[in-house]
Amino acid sequence: MGTTEQDNLQTLAFTQSDERIQELLQRQHELSDLGGLSSLADWDQQTVMPAGAHEVRGHQMATLAGITHKRATDPRLGELLNELRNVVQKPEYTEADRGLVRIALRSYEQATKLPGELVEEAERVQVASIDAWLQAREQKDFALFAPWLTRTIALQREKADRLGYVETRYDALLDGSEPELTASRVEELFAPIREVSTRMLRRIMDSGKTISSETVEGNFSTEKQTQLSETLLKAMGYNFTHGLLARSVHPFTSSFGSPDDVRLTVRFDEQYLPMAMMAALHEGGHALYEQSVSRTFLRTYLASGASMGIHESQSRLWENVIGRSLSYWKGQYAHVQEVFPEKYKSIPVETFTHALNRVEPSLIRVEADEVTYNLHIIIRFEMEKAMVNGDVAVESLPSLWNAKYREYLGIEPENDTVGILQDIHWNSGFGYFPSYTLGNLYSAQIANKIRQSYPDLDERLATGDSSFILNWLREHLYQLGAMYLPADLLQRVTGEAANPQYLVNYLTEKFSAIYGLDAAE
Amino acid sequence: MGTTEQDNLQTLAFTQSDERIQELLQRQHELSDLGGLSSLADWDQQTVMPAGAHEVRGHQMATLAGITHKRATDPRLGELLNELRNVVQKPEYTEADRGLVRIALRSYEQATKLPGELVEEAERVQVASIDAWLQAREQKDFALFAPWLTRTIALQREKADRLGYVETRYDALLDGSEPELTASRVEELFAPIREVSTRMLRRIMDSGKTISSETVEGNFSTEKQTQLSETLLKAMGYNFTHGLLARSVHPFTSSFGSPDDVRLTVRFDEQYLPMAMMAALHEGGHALYEQSVSRTFLRTYLASGASMGIHESQSRLWENVIGRSLSYWKGQYAHVQEVFPEKYKSIPVETFTHALNRVEPSLIRVEADEVTYNLHIIIRFEMEKAMVNGDVAVESLPSLWNAKYREYLGIEPENDTVGILQDIHWNSGFGYFPSYTLGNLYSAQIANKIRQSYPDLDERLATGDSSFILNWLREHLYQLGAMYLPADLLQRVTGEAANPQYLVNYLTEKFSAIYGLDAAE
Repeated sequence: MGTTEQDNLQTLAFTQSDERIQELLQRQHELSDLGGLSSLADWDQQTVMPAGAHEVRGHQMATLAGITHKRATDPRLGELLNELRNVVQKPEYTEADRGLVRIALRSYEQATKLPGELVEEAERVQVASIDAWLQAREQKDFALFAPWLTRTIALQREKADRLGYVETRYDALLDGSEPELTASRVEELFAPIREVSTRMLRRIMDSGKTISSETVEGNFSTEKQTQLSETLLKAMGYNFTHGLLARSVHPFTSSFGSPDDVRLTVRFDEQYLPMAMMAALHEGGHALYEQSVSRTFLRTYLASGASMGIHESQSRLWENVIGRSLSYWKGQYAHVQEVFPEKYKSIPVETFTHALNRVEPSLIRVEADEVTYNLHIIIRFEMEKAMVNGDVAVESLPSLWNAKYREYLGIEPENDTVGILQDIHWNSGFGYFPSYTLGNLYSAQIANKIRQSYPDLDERLATGDSSFILNWLREHLYQLGAMYLPADLLQRVTGEAANPQYLVNYLTEKFSAIYGLDAAE
Repeated sequence: MGTTEQDNLQTLAFTQSDERIQELLQRQHELSDLGGLSSLADWDQQTVMPAGAHEVRGHQMATLAGITHKRATDPRLGELLNELRNVVQKPEYTEADRGLVRIALRSYEQATKLPGELVEEAERVQVASIDAWLQAREQKDFALFAPWLTRTIALQREKADRLGYVETRYDALLDGSEPELTASRVEELFAPIREVSTRMLRRIMDSGKTISSETVEGNFSTEKQTQLSETLLKAMGYNFTHGLLARSVHPFTSSFGSPDDVRLTVRFDEQYLPMAMMAALHEGGHALYEQSVSRTFLRTYLASGASMGIHESQSRLWENVIGRSLSYWKGQYAHVQEVFPEKYKSIPVETFTHALNRVEPSLIRVEADEVTYNLHIIIRFEMEKAMVNGDVAVESLPSLWNAKYREYLGIEPENDTVGILQDIHWNSGFGYFPSYTLGNLYSAQIANKIRQSYPDLDERLATGDSSFILNWLREHLYQLGAMYLPADLLQRVTGEAANPQYLVNYLTEKFSAIYGLDAAE
């Protein structure tokens, strides 16, 4: 363990002797408990809640949001934080104290800028919107969802205006996912990623080489897929005593304000194995992060990831950098063969891994390969900017969506369910999508750092052991929770600022090798 | 529809023109939303919550209870109710107004008598207690649970003292389940039930006749039992758009402050069919009641049953009076045969129904037959009185329990899990158990009334149709929710006060016929 890590461990404690810190903690505990209940209501809604309960659940969540908002904007909390913001800069206070005050202050400032009615209305709209979205998906008809998206856009614009911004209105929303990042900086980071994605896609298409998906198609019962997902999650280090695997329309991970209860969901396709399996690795990455946050941070806003981008870096690291590597499957493929012996007993691990890395322009983001994935995100990023900053008519959004798919990926959705209605995100707002590509960027940068510590990473992974990676991540990243700003954390973990070159190199090298392309171009 | 019912329907509305009623409704909505979230946290804990999440869930529930308590004791609410309690007696106000003010006033008075710290502590103890109870059950060791029961007893005594009572401390807790009932009145009502139960048990044992349980034993997969339970529930009229069936250690029904979301749980024994099937009918009875409450009462304390006893009368009516009758199974047995054809294709419905009415002294309350069931309750009622009014040492409770089982039922538990640890109730408090036998009493009285309206009840039930019973119950009872006090409601529905003679007659006639006893004795 290096000096930095020792420092971290020493500072993972709050100052007990300061009454103001203790008062802040007490208030954080209450807010965290209310947040946990809100997450529970949301979890329930997305996993098992009866269809006829949406109206009453909407009221419940609005009431809870209203109460939470009142406490989050208590003037006494403002006074306390105003005092503490300077106090904790003194050297006798810990990094944890400073992290706590920073995140509490940020939350207080955001909350005081938003009136309670706006927050309650947004909650109500979100609940009803999800209901409409599910119906619209079923009917393959965007028009059923459009009135709710219109309301969400209006509410998000109002929110952005109240929060304030320097460059564009969208920045205010982006800041909610990735503190202190701006759209113009995102554009800068995304430009080389867009370039490498389109270039690699073109080279692969031009090569005429294809990888068959037959290897991962067949008949896979939900029950057996669940068993496989659970086995892989256990092998990753996911702790089922503090979590569970469930099923939902859109996979997600939820902690309830605590590393003690971190649940994840997947969705199943009985004809297509990667749907659930890769979702398990993806959500498993999120879940490992949340489960590993220091218990010092229990019931505080620090018991969470540093940002959505950092969070996605961990889901993408486990899903892609690790979970689509040959070394990983050398160590785990036996589980797949055991659960589905008829299908896999005579298929070599190389063929299986190859099939997980098939590149093909497709319509569905969550099923996209690593080369095209970022193009899906860039489309959504551009559409969000148009909705928030521009004056695009809601009715024209599906055609805008379809046009962008033609332009970036050369294909077009047959209907809205596989088009603009595919993601749950726009039921709650905007600014999240860039996190996925930021996550890819960070994951390549962090993976590069891990490889420096473990030059024999591939050999060890191939033995079925990934615990050394988890331990490294816990020590350098996970235990810290939301103690640092994402940019500071990335600097701390990797020794440099966000740098897209690692992802560019990763995609170029990995897919040149898989498709046997000339590395020179 | 008679005059009474027309009156009911006319009064199932709140006075819109009175601002005070509207203010009360708004406050009720908020309290109901918070109650719904608390029920959700409890539902989650009992169905899927990971074992390692108990601590943090305890904090969340305590925080929620504290916030709810603060709102439930808001002095402004007290002023409002004090004004309304007289106002709503005027003839221009509706029965719904009067019911709302009555239940809100009752809740306010109870809440103001209990300090917030006591309520939060009770919540915290309940959550930790359930955890300890589950472990104690697993280890078959009451000692693991004893410290928590000791704390619950102390908290319940304090609660009773603060709520106040005229005769005995236990009355204060009983009132929480059955408003305005006292232990001495319960003893009066229970005496003839105890008498008929012991008499019929003795006569059956003396007759030497036995019914084999083999008919309902075998191999029944959880999956198929779930399917059967769902089919029977649908046939009863349970609406899955506003509910779902789940699995828990102890079966229960939960509404979340609304007829829109009423869920139930069962538990499975893969060797014993009635475990889940009869639990489905029992919980289904509770659920039909909750799902049928007038939507006028949505998000108010009226969206509930009139009392625990009235609630249990409906679970016991559907489970026993209907659900263990030959007429019912004549109409439903085909479903059982369809799900388990190998077992049941050649067993006649009479044999099947007979097996569901086997009388035998047993250790487990929820699996007990109708003849011995009330003895299980009388034991618990006596033990609760001893814990709350007396000075019994907690360590001696298992031997007291075992002694009572010897005395009343002639048998003794092998271990605490099938003895004193079998029920979840004592994790939260006392005063509920009498509701079950009150429920049996009320159910016989109400069933007698339904038979007066439908002399051809058995013939109709035998065709597979029970909707006429559900409709009668909806009209006369269910839609009214908690609008009337239980005694008033029973008087209204049956035309007389609680009368144990109906249950005495029901048990005597039914089991004399089943066991071929001489009706004369």
